[in-house]
Amino acid sequence: MIPLEDALRRLQETVSPIEETESVRIEEAQGRYLSREMVAPFDVPPFDRAAMDGYAVKAADTLGAGRLEPKKLRLVGEIHAGEVWDGAIGKGECLQIATGAPMPKGADAVVMVEDTEFIGGDVYVYKPVYPGANVSRRGEDMTKGDVVLSPGVLNESKIGVLAAMGIELIEVRRRPTIAIIPTGSEIVPLDQPLKPGQVYDINSYTLAGIVKANGGVPMRVGIVPDTPEAIEDAIREALGCDVVVVSGGSSVGVRDVLEDVLAKMGEIKFHGVQIKPGKPTLLGVVDNVPVLGMPGYPMSCIVNGYLFLELAVRRMANLPPRTRKRVKAKMRGRVTSTLGRRQFLTVRLRVEGKTRWAEPLFKESGAITGMALADGYVDIPDNVDFVEKGDDVVVTLLSELVPK
Amino acid sequence: MIPLEDALRRLQETVSPIEETESVRIEEAQGRYLSREMVAPFDVPPFDRAAMDGYAVKAADTLGAGRLEPKKLRLVGEIHAGEVWDGAIGKGECLQIATGAPMPKGADAVVMVEDTEFIGGDVYVYKPVYPGANVSRRGEDMTKGDVVLSPGVLNESKIGVLAAMGIELIEVRRRPTIAIIPTGSEIVPLDQPLKPGQVYDINSYTLAGIVKANGGVPMRVGIVPDTPEAIEDAIREALGCDVVVVSGGSSVGVRDVLEDVLAKMGEIKFHGVQIKPGKPTLLGVVDNVPVLGMPGYPMSCIVNGYLFLELAVRRMANLPPRTRKRVKAKMRGRVTSTLGRRQFLTVRLRVEGKTRWAEPLFKESGAITGMALADGYVDIPDNVDFVEKGDDVVVTLLSELVPK
Repeated sequence: MIPLEDALRRLQETVSPIEETESVRIEEAQGRYLSREMVAPFDVPPFDRAAMDGYAVKAADTLGAGRLEPKKLRLVGEIHAGEVWDGAIGKGECLQIATGAPMPKGADAVVMVEDTEFIGGDVYVYKPVYPGANVSRRGEDMTKGDVVLSPGVLNESKIGVLAAMGIELIEVRRRPTIAIIPTGSEIVPLDQPLKPGQVYDINSYTLAGIVKANGGVPMRVGIVPDTPEAIEDAIREALGCDVVVVSGGSSVGVRDVLEDVLAKMGEIKFHGVQIKPGKPTLLGVVDNVPVLGMPGYPMSCIVNGYLFLELAVRRMANLPPRTRKRVKAKMRGRVTSTLGRRQFLTVRLRVEGKTRWAEPLFKESGAITGMALADGYVDIPDNVDFVEKGDDVVVTLLSELVPK
Repeated sequence: MIPLEDALRRLQETVSPIEETESVRIEEAQGRYLSREMVAPFDVPPFDRAAMDGYAVKAADTLGAGRLEPKKLRLVGEIHAGEVWDGAIGKGECLQIATGAPMPKGADAVVMVEDTEFIGGDVYVYKPVYPGANVSRRGEDMTKGDVVLSPGVLNESKIGVLAAMGIELIEVRRRPTIAIIPTGSEIVPLDQPLKPGQVYDINSYTLAGIVKANGGVPMRVGIVPDTPEAIEDAIREALGCDVVVVSGGSSVGVRDVLEDVLAKMGEIKFHGVQIKPGKPTLLGVVDNVPVLGMPGYPMSCIVNGYLFLELAVRRMANLPPRTRKRVKAKMRGRVTSTLGRRQFLTVRLRVEGKTRWAEPLFKESGAITGMALADGYVDIPDNVDFVEKGDDVVVTLLSELVPK
């Protein structure tokens, strides 16, 4: 058995960020990892354009304009956004212009429509403008040749930058594929009625959820009986994936076959971690593919999913480690822990008056409700053997919301 | 023009959480809103089961067992997980049992294999067990008839609860559908080369991204020229959606057609908000469908997407308002603001020594890079007309990570 930190370090060394890329359409690119720097292929906007509705003018023509002394300009035409006006603005002339329309030759500013009056074919300007006023310059957003995006996760505004450049196909890093193999002769798929002695497959769904929530693609493999031959075959078939996760089959005892199978097929990196729940967690490598052995018990399995699988998937998916909100609380009851094993105790939060209580769920590690009903967990260090009722603890939240 | 708070309140009153439901497969249920309480249809686990590999015994038979005085029990058989053993354990007998296997009749505890020795057909028990030891009780996880899930967003452990009950089809609330109509005669789709005077459609991609990130389904409508007829037709066709968003066409001026169209088709809730960017933002209702008019400028459009569209989509999708991380920083340069308008100023964060600086991007509101390069924004109240260099400000982050 090794401490959690060592186990996480060995896992970290075993998985690498995926560098292979694939092309996706811009509609599918959100949340994906852009694989390379993007350089603007042309200026954006591609031309000087009006930033306001009004009149394109020579700024010098408006010098000295005021409420009582307007400057009169001759209207020579009109341009809408999307159009091009071929003429040029001469001294004393103006062109009616809509926001977004290209500036005509000869003009260097836009007078806002609110600062003008249109009388008998002429435009009266009541306010002077400086050169460049209300004009959005060619290349002001992006200049041709500029690096406008760096490799990284694409959010909506970065998607907007790609759209501005007219790029429909985006080169992103491929997402990691995670094979999930539930084992156990008592486990049955959801579409079958339970016979005596049988329970439904839970772990393949919870693990798939963790994979999806962290940028990976889960590949659920059918349930495999926990015999060495069946497990070996299933792992071998799954080696095309980036990681193989086997749940169950890693408890100490007569049916502890996964370690033997992995030792035969490849190499064991660790088996046994000083945590509770999750002691029997195992990491092996077969043909360069990491194989994670998770406890079969649903609650142990999901805790270890958060500790190990989440880290592995995020690292391969080029995502930073997940951060979770923490809040302070007081422990509701006395909790005993095992010296030498770091315990992750799921709790519900209850606020009474000014006190926020952390109420341990005290469910056995087979109980999925022990996690589903939890607001978060308390991390009890390995050198603590009990937490007294009323002791201050830090609760790591499982969701973004602080329960009231 | 109305203050932001009033505009948000009117929007909030106009959209309601969607209550219609649909069935999805359990593999697709993560992140969806479970529409009703779930009651356990049977006990989970459905039988008393061994929580450890070992021997099922009568606890009384192990009383007084010790390292030097083991109790000898007669092995009567073996049971694996998934099997059923039809006999009953008598006094002085034991059954080899695997984790997860159903407890045989007559036995009330499991002795861990580590505390035994198997010699010549008999099992020597070196440690006493109490009744119930190492047994996971029928119904310990969920008891038939218990409410095990409340309506709410499904995460991986709640999905696990559904799996434990063998439920493959889950009733969840329908997601809101949001029609996105980009308008503007200068706007062209990404698959066409730009002609003089044209720019690419940005807003329909950034708005679709905001919709997706907040639990909605974006329906991108093709680009619509900004004539009253075309906009009216496009809105009418989109009224099957839960919300219609029109970007562009809401600036003051000759082409300000959206307000006229909406006033004719339905009712205007507000037009003009005291914020920068985003002054021309508009809310109307046509045939009970909210219609949001967003600024056409990409940066203004996305800021208003965060302020208005995000709120509307989350409320309809039954999600709580989004929370964003805030950090303190010092303003890098002097910033002027407009009295009477609350300003959202995008900034980049830079750490120098012990100081975290908020560096304004100073991009015009047409520049999508003004958002894509930002780490967050500073919210400048409407009664402030400038922020001095070195002033303390609060930066609301656009991503979960605090830039270093």
